[in-house]
Amino acid sequence: MSPHPSAHVVRLGVLGHGVVGSAFVALVTQQANQILARSGVRLEVTKICVRDTTKKHSIPSGAVLVSDPVALVHDPQVDLVVEVMGGIEPARELVFAALGKHKPVVTANKALLARHGIELFNAADNAGTDLLFEAAVCGGIPLIRPLRESLRGEPISRVMGIVNGTTNFILTKMSEDGADYGDALAQAQQLGFAEADPTADVQGNDAASKIAIIASIAFGSIVRMDDVFTEGITKITSADITIARKFGYAVKLLGVAEMDEKSSMLSVRVHPSLVPLNNPLATVRESFNAVVVDGRASGSLMFYGRGAGGEPTASAVLGDVIDAAINLRKGTHAPLGTFSNVQLMPMSDVHCEYMIGLEVADKPGVLHTVTGVFARNGVSIRAAEQDGMGADARLVFLTHNANEAAVQRCLAEFKSLDVVSHVGALLRVIAG
Amino acid sequence: MSPHPSAHVVRLGVLGHGVVGSAFVALVTQQANQILARSGVRLEVTKICVRDTTKKHSIPSGAVLVSDPVALVHDPQVDLVVEVMGGIEPARELVFAALGKHKPVVTANKALLARHGIELFNAADNAGTDLLFEAAVCGGIPLIRPLRESLRGEPISRVMGIVNGTTNFILTKMSEDGADYGDALAQAQQLGFAEADPTADVQGNDAASKIAIIASIAFGSIVRMDDVFTEGITKITSADITIARKFGYAVKLLGVAEMDEKSSMLSVRVHPSLVPLNNPLATVRESFNAVVVDGRASGSLMFYGRGAGGEPTASAVLGDVIDAAINLRKGTHAPLGTFSNVQLMPMSDVHCEYMIGLEVADKPGVLHTVTGVFARNGVSIRAAEQDGMGADARLVFLTHNANEAAVQRCLAEFKSLDVVSHVGALLRVIAG
Repeated sequence: MSPHPSAHVVRLGVLGHGVVGSAFVALVTQQANQILARSGVRLEVTKICVRDTTKKHSIPSGAVLVSDPVALVHDPQVDLVVEVMGGIEPARELVFAALGKHKPVVTANKALLARHGIELFNAADNAGTDLLFEAAVCGGIPLIRPLRESLRGEPISRVMGIVNGTTNFILTKMSEDGADYGDALAQAQQLGFAEADPTADVQGNDAASKIAIIASIAFGSIVRMDDVFTEGITKITSADITIARKFGYAVKLLGVAEMDEKSSMLSVRVHPSLVPLNNPLATVRESFNAVVVDGRASGSLMFYGRGAGGEPTASAVLGDVIDAAINLRKGTHAPLGTFSNVQLMPMSDVHCEYMIGLEVADKPGVLHTVTGVFARNGVSIRAAEQDGMGADARLVFLTHNANEAAVQRCLAEFKSLDVVSHVGALLRVIAG
Repeated sequence: MSPHPSAHVVRLGVLGHGVVGSAFVALVTQQANQILARSGVRLEVTKICVRDTTKKHSIPSGAVLVSDPVALVHDPQVDLVVEVMGGIEPARELVFAALGKHKPVVTANKALLARHGIELFNAADNAGTDLLFEAAVCGGIPLIRPLRESLRGEPISRVMGIVNGTTNFILTKMSEDGADYGDALAQAQQLGFAEADPTADVQGNDAASKIAIIASIAFGSIVRMDDVFTEGITKITSADITIARKFGYAVKLLGVAEMDEKSSMLSVRVHPSLVPLNNPLATVRESFNAVVVDGRASGSLMFYGRGAGGEPTASAVLGDVIDAAINLRKGTHAPLGTFSNVQLMPMSDVHCEYMIGLEVADKPGVLHTVTGVFARNGVSIRAAEQDGMGADARLVFLTHNANEAAVQRCLAEFKSLDVVSHVGALLRVIAG
């Protein structure tokens, strides 16, 4: 018998009991009374699906460990499914199955949503049930809900942010301690901020999956991970960061989704960026995440916090679970709405300012040769600086607003020049 | 006839057509199609109540100017009431009347909510209709919704922030340009960031009303403006700011609501504070607002943006209006829940670190006399610094964690000492 006469019990089936799953189960157990007081809903974890039920798992009384995820989804003792197992399959099929049974689903699975989000959103709306996924993007930071609800009527022009904690940690170490990329990565790995195989983080793929989801929601458009132009941070040097600061910028790996008003094309991309030092994103340090939403009426909003980790992510899952449980009691749901096709801007059409570093022979005429390349391609220079001397000489250029295709032509020409020994990372300037 | 077959028309009555009201009406008209596409709701402004209908107002076709707010609330052509008139009366009665008619209300009125919020929340829940008020706190920043929904299950330990743009602008000018308080205030007035009578801003009352509302929502507790200990920025000097920076802090006027775990008492206060320079609040410049929510699971979250202004505030009103309109269509509402009595911590019980500046006679024995006062009252000193020379000599102390009552006893003693010519502002250190 329920101890709270008007309490509505919602029974949770949890797929996965790893870092996020176990943190979620602990949090929901610990917070049960506050949740009941504030929402009138009593959450009960009834089934937890793990790979190996013989392994020791600390679970609350009343919960049962199971090993068959399909059976969990169909279990009549499960009203709501929490998917925190990760990966594409079988997560995709399980979420579809749950929605097909009109069971709300809360998921933290960014890889799944960045690839199959639109189909899943449609399945949820068709079933008239909730699919909530705050935790899939930037861990504990409330971002999806403000975008979906608070800013539903807002004319949004751009959403961009630091959506990967690993790379932000590395860039912070490079910036503040002058560490080089390899040392900063090693430090991140030692402290658990980077995985043994850091590829998905440092190459920008993790950020790409998040910005794809964010762009879909912010612009009501169909954006998939494969649509995102992606460049990582592996070519960034601490010298790049030092000279960027001299020019008034911090170096950050940003996910950017930007609507071009003239062409109505959406540019979605991930790349190392120069952020003006007085932009609040420039001050986001270590493994923190932050996303800036530029609305025509709202102005610039920033959402900041822990973008990963078991507890922050579990916190976001719990917020969604409570919401879905309340809706379930009311027999309602929060429609995801229609997602329209949007024309994506090819990267070659993008315009911005650029910083380019070239290692060159320190002899007469080099600057003339290099600037000739820029001039021929119609790229105009705002500032140039020589960094270092002799064999280590490096020329660093900051361009005026230029076209990506033209800049790429310059880079190709530089690579073919004898006097250029190395073409450094291309850094794109974020406009205020 | 509706041009969209499945569209649900919600007719809005708008009380007030000032800076926020006119920005809201313009925004809802301009965004009507996006709102329809994303929410299935067609918003129509049918009635706008102004004080003087003979004055020129630019309003959309289909809307009618009226002068009787009571008639507007009862008008059968008004489904939802937007209260952007401000002030306590008649706003209070009008909101009660609308809720009594089961009409959802969206309000931007912080003064009203900070005094009568709990009664209004109860009235809304009793009527089974929505009372939404994102715009009443920090203008365009989505904060109330994340607190109410995303963080409903989160164990929150502290909410604090820069919730007044005028004072943050003044402190920024004092900090960055070395301006003194009077000049910075004059500049703020000239630029429209401060009113001709800046009292409510600079004395902290505006911030107090906002932190009262935020504390109510974050802790599910009854907190009214009169419960908030309030100190403004008028005693802050640019010398305070300079020396604070030397100690590693920025000076910010913060609203703070903090749960003391041991005593289960809630401390709610507004005062000039020392914020560690690596805290994200330290980097919030000019008239921007930002609120940090510390949750046990979520970690520190920050919400940042334009805390005032017609368009940002209108953006927040619109987000709420869409939400209430969707709920109205579904015949549901988002309950505000129960607010429990909480024991408020008297200011004299607060413990923190303090910075205190004293103008003293520059002669032997003064430091000994002053430190004797601290010692007798059990206040231990972490750092002391002499600022200036001769007649301008100032001693600045940074204490270890100390009790407010003990520190106030010290201040009273200092004021009675011959060798102390002036006791400066008391600055309270925000713990990381």
